[in-house]
Amino acid sequence: MEKPEGRNVGMSETQWASDIANWDDETDVLVIGLGAAGASASLEATAAGADVLAVECASGGGGTSATSHGQFYLGGGTPIQQACGFEDSPDEMFAYLMASCGPGPDEAKIRMFCDHSVEHFHWLVDHGVKFKASFYADGTDPMTDDSLSYTGNELAHPWCELARPAPRGHTVAHEGPSGGRLMQSLLAAIGSAGVRVLPDTRCQTLVVDRNRGVVGAVVRSVGQQRCLRARRGVVLATGGFIQNAEMVARHAPRVQACMPTGCETDDGSGILMGLGAGGEAIRMEACLVVLPFVSPIGLRRGVLVNRQGQRFVNEDVYQARAGELALYAQGGEVYLIVDDAIFEPTDLPSEVLAVGEDMTELEAALDIPEASLTHTLERYNRDAARGEDPLFHKAPQYLTPLVHPPFAALGCSEEARCPSFTLGGLHTKPNGEVVTPDGRIVPGLYAAGGAAAGLAAQGYNSGISLSDATFFGRRAGAEAARRKVP
Amino acid sequence: MEKPEGRNVGMSETQWASDIANWDDETDVLVIGLGAAGASASLEATAAGADVLAVECASGGGGTSATSHGQFYLGGGTPIQQACGFEDSPDEMFAYLMASCGPGPDEAKIRMFCDHSVEHFHWLVDHGVKFKASFYADGTDPMTDDSLSYTGNELAHPWCELARPAPRGHTVAHEGPSGGRLMQSLLAAIGSAGVRVLPDTRCQTLVVDRNRGVVGAVVRSVGQQRCLRARRGVVLATGGFIQNAEMVARHAPRVQACMPTGCETDDGSGILMGLGAGGEAIRMEACLVVLPFVSPIGLRRGVLVNRQGQRFVNEDVYQARAGELALYAQGGEVYLIVDDAIFEPTDLPSEVLAVGEDMTELEAALDIPEASLTHTLERYNRDAARGEDPLFHKAPQYLTPLVHPPFAALGCSEEARCPSFTLGGLHTKPNGEVVTPDGRIVPGLYAAGGAAAGLAAQGYNSGISLSDATFFGRRAGAEAARRKVP
Repeated sequence: MEKPEGRNVGMSETQWASDIANWDDETDVLVIGLGAAGASASLEATAAGADVLAVECASGGGGTSATSHGQFYLGGGTPIQQACGFEDSPDEMFAYLMASCGPGPDEAKIRMFCDHSVEHFHWLVDHGVKFKASFYADGTDPMTDDSLSYTGNELAHPWCELARPAPRGHTVAHEGPSGGRLMQSLLAAIGSAGVRVLPDTRCQTLVVDRNRGVVGAVVRSVGQQRCLRARRGVVLATGGFIQNAEMVARHAPRVQACMPTGCETDDGSGILMGLGAGGEAIRMEACLVVLPFVSPIGLRRGVLVNRQGQRFVNEDVYQARAGELALYAQGGEVYLIVDDAIFEPTDLPSEVLAVGEDMTELEAALDIPEASLTHTLERYNRDAARGEDPLFHKAPQYLTPLVHPPFAALGCSEEARCPSFTLGGLHTKPNGEVVTPDGRIVPGLYAAGGAAAGLAAQGYNSGISLSDATFFGRRAGAEAARRKVP
Repeated sequence: MEKPEGRNVGMSETQWASDIANWDDETDVLVIGLGAAGASASLEATAAGADVLAVECASGGGGTSATSHGQFYLGGGTPIQQACGFEDSPDEMFAYLMASCGPGPDEAKIRMFCDHSVEHFHWLVDHGVKFKASFYADGTDPMTDDSLSYTGNELAHPWCELARPAPRGHTVAHEGPSGGRLMQSLLAAIGSAGVRVLPDTRCQTLVVDRNRGVVGAVVRSVGQQRCLRARRGVVLATGGFIQNAEMVARHAPRVQACMPTGCETDDGSGILMGLGAGGEAIRMEACLVVLPFVSPIGLRRGVLVNRQGQRFVNEDVYQARAGELALYAQGGEVYLIVDDAIFEPTDLPSEVLAVGEDMTELEAALDIPEASLTHTLERYNRDAARGEDPLFHKAPQYLTPLVHPPFAALGCSEEARCPSFTLGGLHTKPNGEVVTPDGRIVPGLYAAGGAAAGLAAQGYNSGISLSDATFFGRRAGAEAARRKVP
C-alpha cells in the first residue's frame, strides 16, 4: 500500500480508511452536528432501524436552531392553517416558493417539500413540537404564543399575483423566540429514541474508503482523538459558514461587513469536509441580509428610498428581499422615511439618521440631491391618497400619505448592524446524498441544514431554515439508514 | 494496492497514477488548452528550461482569445500610454482595479498584476504582439488600428474620484476585432520556442499520485486514449464554463437566459477536473453581462431608466457595470432614452422598443407609470442644461438635454441578446497554484485564464480577460517548470 506523505493529495481534510489502524467506536449512521438537521436525521435513521451516533462540538445539542425564532415554513393545508380559516395547497405553495426562492431554486427539493409539508407538520407534532391554532396578524415573527403568520412576500407584489397567498409561518407555541423550546422537544425525542450522543466532540475529518465511500470520521472528543466507523453513512449537519471569515471573504464578500447571525459553530467545517470527500458546493455567494429598520409591520407604511431619494421597492416585501436590494444594489445607503403618525421603535436597535419638519429639511440632512426626496414623497402621498402605488404596487393597507411632522429617516450607519447568514453549501439531492461536480454522488455521505444548499437559492422567507433542516435532515437520515453498502 | 471500483470515490474525473500501466508520452509541463493562457504558460515554461507539451481539443490553437477584440488591460506607464501623453502609475492602476473588480477582488493578484504590467507589455511585444502608439477616443473597443483607449469605468463616477484616470485598453494593432491576430503572434512564438502541440486532443481526466500530486492526464487524441505524464506539473488553461448549461444553472443562474459568449470549449471541463483533484472553485456566480444597446460612446448622452421610469446609474459607466445593475437589480427591464440628435445605431443589433413625439407618448408606449418618465427627463434636462447631474454624476461631456423629437427607447426584448461569460473558476494563488478548500495547494496543478478565478471577482473592464490569461498564464507556466518534485 502507498504511504501517504502527511495529508492526502487532493483530499482536503480527508483520511483514508486504509490508514486507520483501529476504530474506537462504530454505528450504522454517524450524524455530525446536533441542531435541528442533525436531530431530525438522527430520529429518522433510528426510525428506519439504524443504530445512530450523533456528535456535537458544543456541550449539548441545539446549534443555531436553538437560537432561532422557532419558526417553520409549512403549508399546503396544515391543520393550523385550516383551523385559522386559511386555504392553501401544495401547488400554490410550490408556485410561491419557486417564484421567491430564486434565482435558480432547486425545483426537485421545492416540489418534494411542498408535497410533503403537511406530513412534515404531523411529524414535528409527533415529536413533541407544539403549535397553536391561532393567527398572528401583526408581523412575520409572532411575539405572542400564536403560531401562524405570514413570513415572506406572499402578500406583496408581484408574488401575490403569482400564487394565492397563505400564511405559512408556523412558530412553536411559546412567547418570544422559541427555537430553544423547539430544540428541547427534538432533543427529548432523541433521548427517547435511544440515539447515542457524544457532546464536546468536534469532527476533524471524514474517513474515506476507495471502494465504499465515506465510512466514518475522525473526531476530537473531550481532548482525545477517536476514530468512529459508520457502517452505512455519515450525515453532515454542521450548519453554514457565516462565522468563517475566510470562507465569507472567498465566497460571499458582499456580506463581509454584516453581522454574522448564527452559532459560532457555523464555521463551514462540514462544508469543507464534504468538499474534501469529493462533494461540490453551490450558491456559496447566496446569503440572507436583513435591514434592521424595516420591521415591525406598521413601518411598511414608510417610504424606503436610496441615496438619490428614489424609491426602489414596494415597502411591504419581506425584510430579506428589501435587504438584498438595499445591500447589493444600493450599497446599503437606504433610508426609511416615516412621519410622526407611523413611527414606532423597531425590533432591532434602530437609528434615526435625520429628523425634519418637512422633506426639504430631511433631504438636506441626508445629503440627498435637492428636490429629489421632495418629489418622491409628493408623488407617493398623491398616489397613496388614492390608495394606489403605480410605481411599486405596495398593498393598499400600507398606503398612507405621510403628512404628520416631524418626519424622520431611519437607517443604518454601518453594515455591521445588518444580520446575515449563508444559504449556499454542499450540493445535495432531495434525499440528502452529496453530489460531486460531475453529477455523481459521494457514496455514504449526506448533508442537510446549513451545510447544504437548500430551498433558498437566494430569496428567503422566515421559517425556511428550520423547515429545510428538519425536512431534509429527516430524508438524509432515512436514506443513510437504508443504504445498501457495497 | 487497493483496486478501484469504477471511478474513484471522492475524486471526480480523476485517475490514480497507480492505475496507469503505461505512459504514452511524457513531458516536464503539460498544458491543457491553447488559448492565450495556455500559449503564455507554454512560452514561459519553455523559457524556464522545461520541455512542454500542449494539448488542444480544437484543430488548432486560439480558443476564445482568438475570437476576442484583442484588447489587453495594461497600465502603470506603458510605452504606449507615455507616447500618447497619458500619465499612469502602478498605484493608480491598483487603486482603480481594487475599486472596480469587486466585491471581494483578489488583492494579491491585482497588486502583482499592476506592479508588473509594464514588464508584461514588453513581454507581449517581444513575442510578436504589436501595439500602435495612438489613442482612440471614440469608445472602448477601437474599430481602427489604434491601440490605446479607455475600457472601463476610469472616467466615471465614483471611480474617477478614487484613482487618477488613465486609458489602459491596449488593443492589438489591427483594424476591427484583433484577437485572431494576437493568437497568430503567440502561436508563432510557440512554434519558434519548440513547444510540442497536440491538436484534436481532449483532456478527459487528470492523473493523481498520492504522494506527488498531479502527475499527468488521460487524453483522447484523434480517437485514441493516451496517458500523458507530466514530470513537473499540469497547467489547466481550458477556459470558463459559459457553454456548460448545467454548470451555469447550478452556479450562475442569473445569466442562464443570456447569450453565451466564448468558444464552445468554454465548457468548464478544466474547472471540473481541478475540483476532482481537490481544488476549490470560487466566485462561480460572477459573470460579465452586457447591455447590447448602451454603446457606442455617443449613446452615453442617453438616459437609462428602469421600468418605473427612474434613472439608476450614471450612463457613462462601462457597459458591463450597466449590465450588472440592469440585469441583476432591475430584471433586465431597462430602456435607453434618446432623442433624434444623439441617436445612432449600436454595435450589436439594437432594438427600438418605442418612439414618441414627447415623453408622455414614450411613457405610455413603454407602460411606464404615468408622469414618471416625464419627471425623470424634465429633471435630467434641467440639470443637464446646467452641466450637472446631482443624482448620478455623469461626466459633463455627456450631459446634453434631450429635446429633439422624435424620442426613442432602445432596449432589449430578451436576455438572449445580452452577451455573457463566466468570471469564477478554480481558486489559484498569483503564481497559478490551485488552492484547496482548506487553504493548501494541489501539488503539481496550476490554472490560469477562464479556468481560474482571476482579476475580475465580479466587476469587469474590457481587456481584463486577455491580460489575466497571459499574465497569470505566464506565471503558472514558469512555476510549473521550476517545481521541485518530491
